[in-house]
Amino acid sequence: MDKLVIAGVGLIGGSIGLAAKKRNAARQVVGTGRRKETLEAARAMGCIDDWSLSVEEAADGADLAVVCTTVSTIPEWAAKLARSIRDDAVLTDVGSTKGVLVRKVEKAIPSPSRFVGSHPIAGSEKASAAHARADLFENRLTILTPTDHTSSKTIDRVEAFWRALGSRTMRTDPETHDELMAACSHLPHLVAALVANRVADIPPIDSSPVVGNGFKDVTRIAMGSPEVWVDILFDNREAILKELSAMGQSIEGLSEALETSDRDGLLQFLEQARSFRARLDEPEQGGERS
Amino acid sequence: MDKLVIAGVGLIGGSIGLAAKKRNAARQVVGTGRRKETLEAARAMGCIDDWSLSVEEAADGADLAVVCTTVSTIPEWAAKLARSIRDDAVLTDVGSTKGVLVRKVEKAIPSPSRFVGSHPIAGSEKASAAHARADLFENRLTILTPTDHTSSKTIDRVEAFWRALGSRTMRTDPETHDELMAACSHLPHLVAALVANRVADIPPIDSSPVVGNGFKDVTRIAMGSPEVWVDILFDNREAILKELSAMGQSIEGLSEALETSDRDGLLQFLEQARSFRARLDEPEQGGERS
Repeated sequence: MDKLVIAGVGLIGGSIGLAAKKRNAARQVVGTGRRKETLEAARAMGCIDDWSLSVEEAADGADLAVVCTTVSTIPEWAAKLARSIRDDAVLTDVGSTKGVLVRKVEKAIPSPSRFVGSHPIAGSEKASAAHARADLFENRLTILTPTDHTSSKTIDRVEAFWRALGSRTMRTDPETHDELMAACSHLPHLVAALVANRVADIPPIDSSPVVGNGFKDVTRIAMGSPEVWVDILFDNREAILKELSAMGQSIEGLSEALETSDRDGLLQFLEQARSFRARLDEPEQGGERS
Repeated sequence: MDKLVIAGVGLIGGSIGLAAKKRNAARQVVGTGRRKETLEAARAMGCIDDWSLSVEEAADGADLAVVCTTVSTIPEWAAKLARSIRDDAVLTDVGSTKGVLVRKVEKAIPSPSRFVGSHPIAGSEKASAAHARADLFENRLTILTPTDHTSSKTIDRVEAFWRALGSRTMRTDPETHDELMAACSHLPHLVAALVANRVADIPPIDSSPVVGNGFKDVTRIAMGSPEVWVDILFDNREAILKELSAMGQSIEGLSEALETSDRDGLLQFLEQARSFRARLDEPEQGGERS
């Protein structure tokens, strides 16, 4: 690839740039975005070769454009980029929700066949390019969400790009993606925030010395940006409401098991969770967090 | 201290032994328990100097006895130890629940004034002495839960012991301890298991490649031993039921905020959680997990 343009050079955008340069996936990496300071910091860190506040200038002649801005602004950035990249170039994004978003992007750009949504399942509660890592996508999964409008050439090229960055890939439709993410990511985030707020609300005692590593682990992702997360919640509202309702029912079931001293039921519940979670740490599943 | 006896030499018991020896808090550390293999492994690791399957032998002449067995068997071990330690010796345990347990222990032993409950907030989902660490209690908190029966000399001596192992300490009554733990530890554990099981239940796809580090963090503690946890749940049933009910209500509130597009309410909810959790990583709060 000759030229890669990245809109929004934060943790994900910055890591894409670092990885693409390190693995020679693009000859030139150019950034664009809203804030000069962010872009210059990303350049200084080696995430991008150059940057411009003008989308036209940054995207001029690019083979691939990746939109890494917050979910709510992805469609407008996609539209701007689509006007400036090469006629045979392809376009993707890294938004954490896909159903509503992919339809919006497809409506916003002239050639929906050249766009496919991506969601690299990587990152952390740290958001800026200062935390970018060239190996962020290595052995992680990126989900591609083609629709009936997407050309197979577009899917193949964007998939090859993620693989070039070291990521594994999976293809599914935007709706299935969103249901999976509601259970695997959005519900856990809300639950982390609920648990943190419950303790934050305990009246007289400052509970911070009382919490252990378990509490810190459970609530760590609640440190993510509220602005980013509120966009995700609205974009994936239906699937998340379903998950919240299921969680409410599970809590009722659990309360009943505890009230009725259903020891076997509780043991089975805890054992299923233990064995499922333990499997995630086995090496063939990608291993422990680095 | 001349002689320390530890009943149940797993992660916590083993770490107490290692820390006591490293910091010269006891001249001799002897273990006892149900299984020869466990005790011999703990001795080989240097957690204890010696061991005996006979409680009488192990505890003979001890100044301090610490019961580190599972919650359900703590009272019987405490009773056995109380008969064999020196007349002026003191007794403590490390159970994660205190209300029901402390009353049971006080009934099971001849001199309740010489017993005080302890709960070191340290440890992990790993349970055996193989994971024991001499620094497990350093800069962690141990909560002591005296009652009207406890002599102040007992509290002072047990508190001094934990401080000698590097732990900070706090004193509160068993009931307040249990309410705090229900919110800070037991609810998070149940929630971690609920989140894990929700994903384990997703029908066709093996979701393991789909989950990211956030999911792994939230669900890590669900790897704890089901047998240990079911005891904790029953021992702290009332406080946990209250927490589950509060969590159910919070979930309903959250669903309503999402349904009515209450962006400000959701932002406030997420921001409160973010700022509370971020404070826990500040150095003066004990810092990041090691």
